[in-house]
Amino acid sequence: MTTQITEAKKGNITPEMEFIAEKENIDVNVLREKIAQGRVVILKNNLRHDVIPTGVGEGLTVKINANIGTSFERSSTEEEIQKVKVIEASGAHVLMDLSTGHNIDETRMAIIKSTKLPIGTVPMYQAGKEAIDEFNDIGRLSKDKLFSDIEKHCRSGIDFITVHCGVTKFVVDALEKQGRVTDIVSRGGSMLACWIKATGKENPLYEYYDELLDIVKKYDVTLSLGDGLRPGCGYDAGDRAQVAETIVLGELVKRARKAGVQSMVEGPGHVPLNKIPAMMETIKVLTDYAPLYVLGPIVTDIAPGYDHITAAIGGTLAAYHGADFLCYVTPAEHIGLPNAKQVREGIITSLIAAHAADVARGNAAAIERDKKMSEARKNLDWDEQAKYAVDKCVFEKIMNGKPCTMCGQYCSMKIFNEYFK
Amino acid sequence: MTTQITEAKKGNITPEMEFIAEKENIDVNVLREKIAQGRVVILKNNLRHDVIPTGVGEGLTVKINANIGTSFERSSTEEEIQKVKVIEASGAHVLMDLSTGHNIDETRMAIIKSTKLPIGTVPMYQAGKEAIDEFNDIGRLSKDKLFSDIEKHCRSGIDFITVHCGVTKFVVDALEKQGRVTDIVSRGGSMLACWIKATGKENPLYEYYDELLDIVKKYDVTLSLGDGLRPGCGYDAGDRAQVAETIVLGELVKRARKAGVQSMVEGPGHVPLNKIPAMMETIKVLTDYAPLYVLGPIVTDIAPGYDHITAAIGGTLAAYHGADFLCYVTPAEHIGLPNAKQVREGIITSLIAAHAADVARGNAAAIERDKKMSEARKNLDWDEQAKYAVDKCVFEKIMNGKPCTMCGQYCSMKIFNEYFK
Repeated sequence: MTTQITEAKKGNITPEMEFIAEKENIDVNVLREKIAQGRVVILKNNLRHDVIPTGVGEGLTVKINANIGTSFERSSTEEEIQKVKVIEASGAHVLMDLSTGHNIDETRMAIIKSTKLPIGTVPMYQAGKEAIDEFNDIGRLSKDKLFSDIEKHCRSGIDFITVHCGVTKFVVDALEKQGRVTDIVSRGGSMLACWIKATGKENPLYEYYDELLDIVKKYDVTLSLGDGLRPGCGYDAGDRAQVAETIVLGELVKRARKAGVQSMVEGPGHVPLNKIPAMMETIKVLTDYAPLYVLGPIVTDIAPGYDHITAAIGGTLAAYHGADFLCYVTPAEHIGLPNAKQVREGIITSLIAAHAADVARGNAAAIERDKKMSEARKNLDWDEQAKYAVDKCVFEKIMNGKPCTMCGQYCSMKIFNEYFK
Repeated sequence: MTTQITEAKKGNITPEMEFIAEKENIDVNVLREKIAQGRVVILKNNLRHDVIPTGVGEGLTVKINANIGTSFERSSTEEEIQKVKVIEASGAHVLMDLSTGHNIDETRMAIIKSTKLPIGTVPMYQAGKEAIDEFNDIGRLSKDKLFSDIEKHCRSGIDFITVHCGVTKFVVDALEKQGRVTDIVSRGGSMLACWIKATGKENPLYEYYDELLDIVKKYDVTLSLGDGLRPGCGYDAGDRAQVAETIVLGELVKRARKAGVQSMVEGPGHVPLNKIPAMMETIKVLTDYAPLYVLGPIVTDIAPGYDHITAAIGGTLAAYHGADFLCYVTPAEHIGLPNAKQVREGIITSLIAAHAADVARGNAAAIERDKKMSEARKNLDWDEQAKYAVDKCVFEKIMNGKPCTMCGQYCSMKIFNEYFK
């Protein structure tokens, strides 16, 4: 078995590279070179033959991910499969199963069977959950259990995994010296920091990183290097603790590339708008331009119920300044698990951010779509507008069977056409 | 009768300046100086004693406006008064009555009576509508009718008026030479361009600008110099036609200041994210740092049904780069007149953009509110979070009586506190 980066380094073009180059309208040799450099990854477990290979990184369109998964209080595999259908229908490119409810393995297998979208997981959630459930002590989690869960996820066909390898003793020390308003808001990051605090030992994902690379390499599972210390509020954004972890992640990207393993880096989080450009560019430099996968960033802390919007504001600017992959945020963020309706709203909003960033980044297809929509708008052609709308259903629902009621006979387009044409 | 800018130039501090300086936590002498320079305006007709004087411009928090008004097809004063109640309850700072339905005067008087918020109108809508209704030809509109409608609006207590003085023969010529995808999307701008085309004469609002200044000065009505040639799609953004008009607006700002009239400048529209920083800074320079009032800007054309969100993305970045005043956009934009629910959604989204920009601009009170929210979040204090939430109702509705169901006993905050405190 080989990996995309290994083949790319050898100068080989795989069918997945061909597929993505055609879809993204990019020269396949340019794409191959970017994969060889590690600036683009292809999400596809080599055991999963029917998955849609999805490229993430420099020169490609911005992708979006939708998170689903059970929780202790809401644990129905059926409900999650319903969400997968919503995700596919709404146009998200990737999904993550973040289940922490009952029967995690069963839920994961059912999700894999139900979709051709690439899927990510956070194996630490399963390992950590079971330690907490059994011993009520995260410190009792063993390295063997964690690594065996990782291999189990890879073997089951997962295309990428989030691993918080960067939460090292050095980084936790930086955090304690920093002093933060919201400390750690990453579940996996918090579990590992607490494990370090409880045991006094180094993060096993860091200490045994070579072993981790060996496991994922077999399946060509992409590592998504989690940002366990991402800021959980604007106040903490860009602090020494965050940057310390980013430095560690950069080292790990380098080691992954050398080992023939695909890797991307996760980014924040809560970041005021003014800090976003420098932060994105700093992360890119510190991680040697690895594909950057951000959660938000949300630009204010005061909008629970509307964090799909605060994330779209930050995500658009972040993607313009280098982020390649946006994790959606739903209106339920900070409040509870999203229902199917909130999942859909999160996806559409995230697609808008990704598209607006594609336009700003000069993607020709995205710019052309905007132009076609505008021509249809000028022609007062409502059917044609529906074709280009990001959400045809909502467009037609608001229209409610009749064209714009806003200006009537005083419509600027109508008047202008009468006098100037 | 005098005006705020006249008093400020004399070195006098008015009660309105005192009120705003206290509310915005800014030194009253700094504020007075900015009003004297024309970089800040106070929206308040001197006949309207009970209005909340509202400052717009450099150094102040970002304000938001909500548009309401009847149309030919939906013309109920009662419905508009309902919207005023929604606007006040949601926290918008200003509203505009853009009525083009029946009984425009009656609707405007009812709105004025119903609120203490500053109110703006576009008198050209009334004048243009009546010419179209009566003669089916905008070219038949007379200068006298237009100016008498302007004076009528001022006399009735309106605090600011949009006047498309910058749509001159020179600018219309620049437009025709430019060639655009969506030509003109401003109703007032379109009416005046067509008037020029039909009559061959100069825009009366430009030709008789001194007379216009005399009228508004009597009431201290602020001129909002409309951008009749704002881009109606990303493709047209920042073109020669738009900048030609901005140059004219800059000249008119200078003349208004000299005459002792307060003025602000309106900005776009549809603008891809990458063009926003330079465009805002260019408008500010060309108009000698007049308060800048933008509609959006929306960052993609393909999201009808979600243009409150595309406007929040663009509006936050625009305000960070100099815009002072955001006109809200509702989910119904480009499709129809908004209902009360859509008005509310537009306002909350716009408030989020304004607040996120205030945070990014370093406003101490805005940053403190985010910090308080984050402290409450870390303490898992849901009542305290509701206090700082931009929309307490929606926050509590999603919460539905119980705290976050997302992570349960695996909550990062909870785990971290156990091991680190």
